[in-house]
Amino acid sequence: MTARFFATPQDAAAAFYDALERADLDAMMAIWAEDEEVFCTHPNGARQTGFAAVRESWRQTFSIGPRASVRLSEQVQRLGILLAVHSVLEHYTVPGEETPRPPVIASNVYVRGAQGWHLLSRHASSAPGAVTADISATLH
Amino acid sequence: MTARFFATPQDAAAAFYDALERADLDAMMAIWAEDEEVFCTHPNGARQTGFAAVRESWRQTFSIGPRASVRLSEQVQRLGILLAVHSVLEHYTVPGEETPRPPVIASNVYVRGAQGWHLLSRHASSAPGAVTADISATLH
Repeated sequence: MTARFFATPQDAAAAFYDALERADLDAMMAIWAEDEEVFCTHPNGARQTGFAAVRESWRQTFSIGPRASVRLSEQVQRLGILLAVHSVLEHYTVPGEETPRPPVIASNVYVRGAQGWHLLSRHASSAPGAVTADISATLH
Repeated sequence: MTARFFATPQDAAAAFYDALERADLDAMMAIWAEDEEVFCTHPNGARQTGFAAVRESWRQTFSIGPRASVRLSEQVQRLGILLAVHSVLEHYTVPGEETPRPPVIASNVYVRGAQGWHLLSRHASSAPGAVTADISATLH
């Protein structure tokens, strides 16, 4: 795996959503901190702890191939010296599905190391109810 | 509201679970950072942003009064200089319920300010499936 350097948490976040949309497992795992105890919770899933378990969870997620595009809204960020937290609503669009899915609430924590900023943890869960009309900020 | 000083994220976390078990709204909100953009997602809930919205969500949660005790397991912590992240499984015991509930996965982020460490964000979601037998570490 090629280590990637991210100068800011925002750079790592942009690479994260790019890898997510492309269902690119290597690109996804290049964003996670290899030398930390990483952990990840997918919507309706158990918490996965450790790089190998997190990688396997993304391998399963990506096994059906790329199919969803994601837009972000209502982002809240807090930047520390060694850690940064991003909270965001993710709106997924899946081709062939007519009814929009409820957004996913995501809390992503980035950690700064010798190789720049990488993902330390992700906690994602489905928001209840219908999708709100207010999808303002997007990645694209 | 009386401002409380917490010297470490662990101190704030202990006070958080104490307030949670007692359903004490004032004690709960004394743990949250008043001067930050706080946000909170309860299990199966939408994300609440801002001190007033977070307070209202806890008021509703506590409106039925204290009834659950909580044990923690599989805690993962990462301490930064200004931020700290705690990920933990919360096991709730509700009197009168014979079947144990699935654990709650919680990601709590603490922030350091002039008044010590306080809760910046909480993301909680229900873990799927049955409760595991391995409840090792507890708060008590």
